[in-house]
Amino acid sequence: MKCGIAIFPSKKIQDFANSYRKRYDTHYSLIPPHLTLKNTFEVEEDQIESVVKELHKIAAEIEPFPLRITKFSSFYPASNIIYLKVEPNESLTTLYNKLHSGPFQEQTEDAFVPHITIGRDLSNDEFSDVYGQLKMQKVHFEETVDRFHLLYQLENGSWTAYETFHLGKEQG
Amino acid sequence: MKCGIAIFPSKKIQDFANSYRKRYDTHYSLIPPHLTLKNTFEVEEDQIESVVKELHKIAAEIEPFPLRITKFSSFYPASNIIYLKVEPNESLTTLYNKLHSGPFQEQTEDAFVPHITIGRDLSNDEFSDVYGQLKMQKVHFEETVDRFHLLYQLENGSWTAYETFHLGKEQG
Repeated sequence: MKCGIAIFPSKKIQDFANSYRKRYDTHYSLIPPHLTLKNTFEVEEDQIESVVKELHKIAAEIEPFPLRITKFSSFYPASNIIYLKVEPNESLTTLYNKLHSGPFQEQTEDAFVPHITIGRDLSNDEFSDVYGQLKMQKVHFEETVDRFHLLYQLENGSWTAYETFHLGKEQG
Repeated sequence: MKCGIAIFPSKKIQDFANSYRKRYDTHYSLIPPHLTLKNTFEVEEDQIESVVKELHKIAAEIEPFPLRITKFSSFYPASNIIYLKVEPNESLTTLYNKLHSGPFQEQTEDAFVPHITIGRDLSNDEFSDVYGQLKMQKVHFEETVDRFHLLYQLENGSWTAYETFHLGKEQG
């Protein structure tokens, strides 16, 4: 089963992100606005409960932390993705690292750049237009992250939530 | 916040349902295939944690139970909805009743007909064609339900998972 791990920000942020995603993000209908903590990884169906157990342990080790969004940014020229930039903080980075080490080790050369995608697969011209406007805009959201979700992907590319993990107050 | 409560069946059933929903269900991109336990209800944002607490209590009172799908069916003539019929059983009915009494009391005159919608908003002709074919087909799925989810609705009509509730093994 293809799994992924993500934070869903508050409805307010999701509605804000969707106002852009509707026009600019080809994944708009596949998953709600999210911050990816771990990209697609394969889990055998009979291994899912042991993955869940490990994730509960990890969640218990990290207290709820702030999520701050400060501006629009982009991965250009590496890719044409436009996103809401999430300010890195120690808890978020620690959580990411735990989800990429031990039983969750994987080969990745990407640095962690926490973000909520709002545009992708745009033509170069469209990218320049849209990003040119967005990067001048002020954005400010601040809230507390107290949970993350394990999701699995259906054959049509969409994602279904499997389990919720609460930061700090887990029983392991 | 508009909330709802649903069971997501296994990936296998969801993929099967989506093969029809893609063509016949206008809600295809708003939510993965699901069995609705409680239709949209309003929860104030500062009340959500007390709702969550109540739902954990209810989940703890019901053991995991079988989900059996036996055929396609329809609400015609009340509506043109086509669905995968889920065999009622005592646990499922008890769960439904608990989600519609006490703090979750609501005015409803509908009997509980457990189902997974695969078609809606079809014209009369299309409905007759599609349902005429589907109702002759054999379907058989059987699995165990061990959880349900509280979801909330975004402004675009799509649903985001908020929390998972495990049947039986909850700590309340």
